[in-house]
Amino acid sequence: MNTLSQTIGQITAVDAGKRAQARKRLEQLTMPHWALGRLMDLALDLAGMTRSLNPPIKRKTIVTMAGDHGVVAEGISAFPQEVTPQMVYNIVAGGAGVNALARQAGAQVVVVDMGVAADLGDLAASGKIISKRIAAGTRNMAVGAAMSRDEAVRAIEAGIEVALLLGPSVDVFGTGEMGIGNTTPSSAIVAALSGCPAADVTGRGTGLNDAQMEHKIRIIEKSIKVNQPDKSDGLDVLAKVGGFEIGGIAGLILGAASLQKPVVVDGFISTAGALIAHALAPASADYMIAAHRSVEKGHRVALDILGKKPLIDLDLRLGEGTGAALAMNFIEAAVRILTEVATFEEAMVSKST
Amino acid sequence: MNTLSQTIGQITAVDAGKRAQARKRLEQLTMPHWALGRLMDLALDLAGMTRSLNPPIKRKTIVTMAGDHGVVAEGISAFPQEVTPQMVYNIVAGGAGVNALARQAGAQVVVVDMGVAADLGDLAASGKIISKRIAAGTRNMAVGAAMSRDEAVRAIEAGIEVALLLGPSVDVFGTGEMGIGNTTPSSAIVAALSGCPAADVTGRGTGLNDAQMEHKIRIIEKSIKVNQPDKSDGLDVLAKVGGFEIGGIAGLILGAASLQKPVVVDGFISTAGALIAHALAPASADYMIAAHRSVEKGHRVALDILGKKPLIDLDLRLGEGTGAALAMNFIEAAVRILTEVATFEEAMVSKST
Repeated sequence: MNTLSQTIGQITAVDAGKRAQARKRLEQLTMPHWALGRLMDLALDLAGMTRSLNPPIKRKTIVTMAGDHGVVAEGISAFPQEVTPQMVYNIVAGGAGVNALARQAGAQVVVVDMGVAADLGDLAASGKIISKRIAAGTRNMAVGAAMSRDEAVRAIEAGIEVALLLGPSVDVFGTGEMGIGNTTPSSAIVAALSGCPAADVTGRGTGLNDAQMEHKIRIIEKSIKVNQPDKSDGLDVLAKVGGFEIGGIAGLILGAASLQKPVVVDGFISTAGALIAHALAPASADYMIAAHRSVEKGHRVALDILGKKPLIDLDLRLGEGTGAALAMNFIEAAVRILTEVATFEEAMVSKST
Repeated sequence: MNTLSQTIGQITAVDAGKRAQARKRLEQLTMPHWALGRLMDLALDLAGMTRSLNPPIKRKTIVTMAGDHGVVAEGISAFPQEVTPQMVYNIVAGGAGVNALARQAGAQVVVVDMGVAADLGDLAASGKIISKRIAAGTRNMAVGAAMSRDEAVRAIEAGIEVALLLGPSVDVFGTGEMGIGNTTPSSAIVAALSGCPAADVTGRGTGLNDAQMEHKIRIIEKSIKVNQPDKSDGLDVLAKVGGFEIGGIAGLILGAASLQKPVVVDGFISTAGALIAHALAPASADYMIAAHRSVEKGHRVALDILGKKPLIDLDLRLGEGTGAALAMNFIEAAVRILTEVATFEEAMVSKST
C-alpha cells in the first residue's frame, strides 16, 4: 500500500492565501460585485488549488478509464458487454462523444484499460491506450466481492500512476469512463457510503424500462446484503461493490490532488470514484470540480456528500468524460475573468455610489 | 417603416425537414438514446435554423448595444450614468467581462452606440464602434414616453441594419448590452407584456438594497401607469417603457432571423429585447437561443413567454453579452456532436438489446 498511502500523505489543503488574493482582485473588477457568479467562485477555487493568480490550465486531458463488470451476468444493462471494447476502439479512433467534446474544449483524451473483458493488447502495444488491467472484468458482486482488497488497492494505485505519468504534461485533469453495467456498482457505492436505500440512488443507466429498473434495484440490494461493505472503509466498499475503472478514477483524483492540479469529475460513475477518493482522503475533494448534474438519480446524493454543486445541467447521461470536457470551457472562462478583466482603477470606471 | 416590415416579412419558420434529418443521425450515434440531452436538442435547432446538417458556426460575433436611460433621474441604479460611456471605452479596450469571455469562446465583440448620453464620436470616427445613436439617452419614462414611436422604429431598424451589415461575415450572433439603469425598462417591458405586477419581475440590478428595490418597483409601476403601454403592440411598449439599446437588440434579432442565422440571447435585458422582437414577429423566436438564466427575477417570466429554456445557470447578472459568449461553447459542442460522432454502423458498435 506504499504508493497509495504516500499519495494520500501528500495531499494538502488548498492555499487560503491565494484564494484571498484572488478574491481581492475579483472584487475590484469593472462589474457589479460578483456579477459573474459561480464563474468567480470557480476562479477562487482554481487559485487555491494551483497556488497561482494565473492558474495554469492550458494543457487539458480527459482520462477515460475502461473496465467490465461481472454483475452484467444479472442482466442489469441494456447493452451487451462487448460494447465496452468496441467503444474503446471507437474512442481511440476519435469517433465517440468524448472525442467530439474534447476537441471542442481543446483537451486530449487518454484511454486506460483498467480491466476490460477482452484483449486490447494491440491497442496497448501500439501506444494507443495505457494498459493497467487488473483482470478481465470484476466478479459478479451479486454473489460475492467484485474484487479482492488487494485488487482494489492496485486499481487505485494504477490511477495514481496514470496521474503521475501524465502530470508533467497536464494542467487540468478530467475523469471519464467506459464500462457496460457500471451505473450498477456506482449506485451500490453511493448506497453503501450514503446509507440511502438502493431505490433512491438507482437510475435507468443506458435506458432500462420500469421492470428492468426494478430488477437492477434488487440486484444492488442483494449485492449490498451479500457483501456488507463497511462504509467507514473506502477500500472495502470499492472491493466489494465497485469496479476497476471506478478505482482507477479514485486513484486519478488522488494523484491529481497530490500534484495540486484541478480534476474535473464527470458524471455519476466518476462521482462514485470521487466518493472513494474522498473516503480515503477527504482533502482530495478540494481539488475536485463537479462538471455536470447527471440524469442518474444517485448523482445528487453523491454530490451532496462531496459538498459539490455541478457547473452544467443539460440532461447528459453519457459518461466517457463528456461532461468533464464541456466543463473545461468554464474553467478557461474563470481564469480569463481572473486574469483579463480590468479593475475599476485600471479602466478608470466609476464605482457604485 | 420599410426596413422593419420588409425584414419581418422575410422571417420564415425553421426547416422541419432538416431538423428531422438531424434527428435521424443523432439517434444512430454510438451512445444510449439522446444521452447528450439538451446538446442534442440544440443540434436539432441549429440544423433547422441554418438548413444544414453541418451548421456553420465558426464566425461568432457578440453585438453589444449601448444606450442610456432618462429614468436614472429617479435614482434607480447603484451606478452613475457616466459608467455607460466608461464601460464602452473599457469594452473597446478589451478589458470588460464580455471581452474575456468572448476571447475564450473565439467570438468577436462589436459595440454599437444606440444612444449613450455622452459623445462617443472619437470611437465612431476611428471605426472602433458602430454609431447608430438615436438620441443622448431616452427620456424619463416615469413622467412620459421613453421615446417617440418613430424613434422606436428607428432603434429597431438600426439593429436590423447592424445584422445585415455584419451578416456576410457572421455565422452566429450573440446579443449584449451596456446601459446604466437598463434593468428598469427591461422589467417594465416584461411587466407590460406579461401582465405581471412590477414587483414580480423586478430584481436588484447592479446591486440595490431593499429600500432601493422598493423604490425601483414604484418607479416601474408609475411608468406603466403614466404611459399605459399597449401589450398587443410591441412598438408601443418599446417606445413608452423601453430603451434604445433594447430596441437595437430587438432589431438585431429580427435581422438575424431574416438571415436564417442563430442568435444567442444573453440575459435579462437582452431577453426584454427578444420579447419586443417576438411581439413584432413571433417566428423570430425560432432563431433565438437562450444563453443563461439571469439572477434577475423577471428573466424567468420573459423566457416563459418565449418558450425558451436557457443553457447555463451560473448566477450571472453582468450582461454585456457575457452569457451569450459563454453559450457559444455549447453551440460548438452541439455541432460537433452532430458532425463528428460516429454512428453504430460506422464504428461497428453493438446496439442495445
